[in-house]
Amino acid sequence: MIKKIKDERTIVSNKMIYLQQVKQNNMSEVLGRIWQYRQASRVELVERTGLTSGTLTNLTHELIEMNVLRENESISGNVGRRRVMLGFDPRVYRIIGLDIGRTALEIVVMDLNGEILQSIERDMSGCKGPEEYFRIITPIVNEVKKGLEAEGCKILGLGAGIPGPIDYDQGTLLAPPNFPGWEGYPVQRVLEEQCGLVTLIDDDARTSAMAERWYGLGKSSQNLVFVTMGVGIGGGVVSGGAIVRGANGLSGQVGHMTIVQDGKMCDCGNRGCWETVGSIPGILSRWAQGGTIEEFQAAIKRREPEALQCLDKTISYMETALVNIQNLYDPEVIVLGGRLYPLLSDSMDSLKPRFQSRLYAFAKDRLRIESSTFGTSQGAVGAAALLLNFLLSEPVRLLSLTEG
Amino acid sequence: MIKKIKDERTIVSNKMIYLQQVKQNNMSEVLGRIWQYRQASRVELVERTGLTSGTLTNLTHELIEMNVLRENESISGNVGRRRVMLGFDPRVYRIIGLDIGRTALEIVVMDLNGEILQSIERDMSGCKGPEEYFRIITPIVNEVKKGLEAEGCKILGLGAGIPGPIDYDQGTLLAPPNFPGWEGYPVQRVLEEQCGLVTLIDDDARTSAMAERWYGLGKSSQNLVFVTMGVGIGGGVVSGGAIVRGANGLSGQVGHMTIVQDGKMCDCGNRGCWETVGSIPGILSRWAQGGTIEEFQAAIKRREPEALQCLDKTISYMETALVNIQNLYDPEVIVLGGRLYPLLSDSMDSLKPRFQSRLYAFAKDRLRIESSTFGTSQGAVGAAALLLNFLLSEPVRLLSLTEG
Repeated sequence: MIKKIKDERTIVSNKMIYLQQVKQNNMSEVLGRIWQYRQASRVELVERTGLTSGTLTNLTHELIEMNVLRENESISGNVGRRRVMLGFDPRVYRIIGLDIGRTALEIVVMDLNGEILQSIERDMSGCKGPEEYFRIITPIVNEVKKGLEAEGCKILGLGAGIPGPIDYDQGTLLAPPNFPGWEGYPVQRVLEEQCGLVTLIDDDARTSAMAERWYGLGKSSQNLVFVTMGVGIGGGVVSGGAIVRGANGLSGQVGHMTIVQDGKMCDCGNRGCWETVGSIPGILSRWAQGGTIEEFQAAIKRREPEALQCLDKTISYMETALVNIQNLYDPEVIVLGGRLYPLLSDSMDSLKPRFQSRLYAFAKDRLRIESSTFGTSQGAVGAAALLLNFLLSEPVRLLSLTEG
Repeated sequence: MIKKIKDERTIVSNKMIYLQQVKQNNMSEVLGRIWQYRQASRVELVERTGLTSGTLTNLTHELIEMNVLRENESISGNVGRRRVMLGFDPRVYRIIGLDIGRTALEIVVMDLNGEILQSIERDMSGCKGPEEYFRIITPIVNEVKKGLEAEGCKILGLGAGIPGPIDYDQGTLLAPPNFPGWEGYPVQRVLEEQCGLVTLIDDDARTSAMAERWYGLGKSSQNLVFVTMGVGIGGGVVSGGAIVRGANGLSGQVGHMTIVQDGKMCDCGNRGCWETVGSIPGILSRWAQGGTIEEFQAAIKRREPEALQCLDKTISYMETALVNIQNLYDPEVIVLGGRLYPLLSDSMDSLKPRFQSRLYAFAKDRLRIESSTFGTSQGAVGAAALLLNFLLSEPVRLLSLTEG
């Protein structure tokens, strides 16, 4: 008897969950379409989503009430009628993006149209371990938050990019190379507690890929690989519009593919990794004269043969790595960024045709290599994109967290 | 006025499409759960899918009527009650899987439980070009089809695996290396016309991956990479349970990652590809004595130093390639197969610890390398899996095609 009642209750509660799920899916569909086209009329949304006009009107009404969408000025349609266009409302909701780097910190504030409203940078070189970092991060985020709230804004949440790999279940860092003291540190929980915001974290190469996916080149490319080159070399993979993490959060570790067979040991455990020869320390270790990356750059400018030779070899390793990335992931575009990239970008004109000549003949004209859209702000913008992605995929859930 | 009526019609027709879509999604959910657990009671299905008991009863009734599902003998539940379990019905529907290889052909007939009921092989060495192939393929498939129909069976469709890459829009082959005469050949259309069956085609490395995903190791691993080694080296990637094709159908071309920096030219356009050193022709080109793969195998058995040295180098290239695959895709399991694999499998005991020692310390215990489940039938079984995948994801559509 008790069993029976329990069964019925389960069914009722499942039905409620199911209806919430249907609403979430419908809202996600509507928001996704509006994001894709920047704005859309209700008639267009009905046509494109297959929702009934009544359902659509209810959903958009709710989203306008919540300041997620707004009605933009009417524009004339192709039959001479004037239509009300729906777009994201940039006035109320804010997203905070945080990029925690090995030598620098950046915080951006973005609106729901993807505009960067505010950007704060801090030099962190010399700063050791998470406690020192958070003595700087927490006050800045809380000040930004206070300022936004004073303006009447609501904060959708905080996204943070950090050097990976990440334990996604625990919200902690897993053995990040060259980032001592962070192993096992509960970044997500600490941020959530100290800033009181919905918080998402991800590997900084993945947040960089997310920046392209939602705010940059990804608007037209649903398959892309972001490669970030600096002290390390990382990758973020977007496939069919979704970020790919892999079974252990290690997908896209392009810096740790072996480029030099029987090459030298890497911190990751592998040998001859691209990172061991192609990152900033990798280049400097191969530069006969030795010095800092700034000195190397100056030597390139002076066209010193040893430096030029080292640069040539760097580009040749990069060419091989990019061909491998293309042949394994088959993205529409490979996007390059990171602190090292500006130094290499002059060589891209010579690299691109060599890269293309090594691809399948029928596909080579379709493939592209591009520079990152947001330069040094890529990681922070992408961290904000984590929240946009959450809003577009699970709007009911995120908005209930924010409103609660 | 006309505009208005048109709008209303659009809405009505959209609503019907939408309801069909909802039914398709619900049916897909139900079939997916039953596949996952082999069988399930209606109560379990209600709990796991969130559907109402009424909707579930209607859906399963329809699927039983169509001979997709059947009620299996009641078994005692954990509270002593007896429940009717739903499972796939293996009696009526059949799937035909076809593997078109460079030197052999295989056709399998499978039921909806994934049992191989029939298997036909043909040696195709010496056979040149698609016309010659189809003079053999078409009569065999049509005979199999006639036999099945005479038994009262219905054929869900025909899946075919062929050496890729494939133009998925056109259903043709794109420049398959070592497979002269097939470029641009409309394999899918020819099969469909000559056999009168719903036909899906895919790259043979992808069908091999699909065989694991649906009938083999993929039951517990939603992220896997299948590597097939023979005359060529190919890869099929399953991520989150779905096959990954990439922007140009070229995802997973693991044989065409550069393993030897500045190595020799490959047919694909790249240099130093794994395939140039690790495939059957690649191995033979490095074997000082020279000969066929059978002679190489015999020399290994006799423990001839030159052959052993060549094998060692082959394993070392493979080790590097597998580390790269692991670091780029992060699958739960890498599955190895193909005609060359049996020759290399004795060396796996020494390769595995070397492979593991090159991975991130925290993840190395979670990663696995396994042998393919279906040996030489892998491609044909996987070709059948293309249809199973279609049934589980778009049941309404496939069943209406089959019934029509």
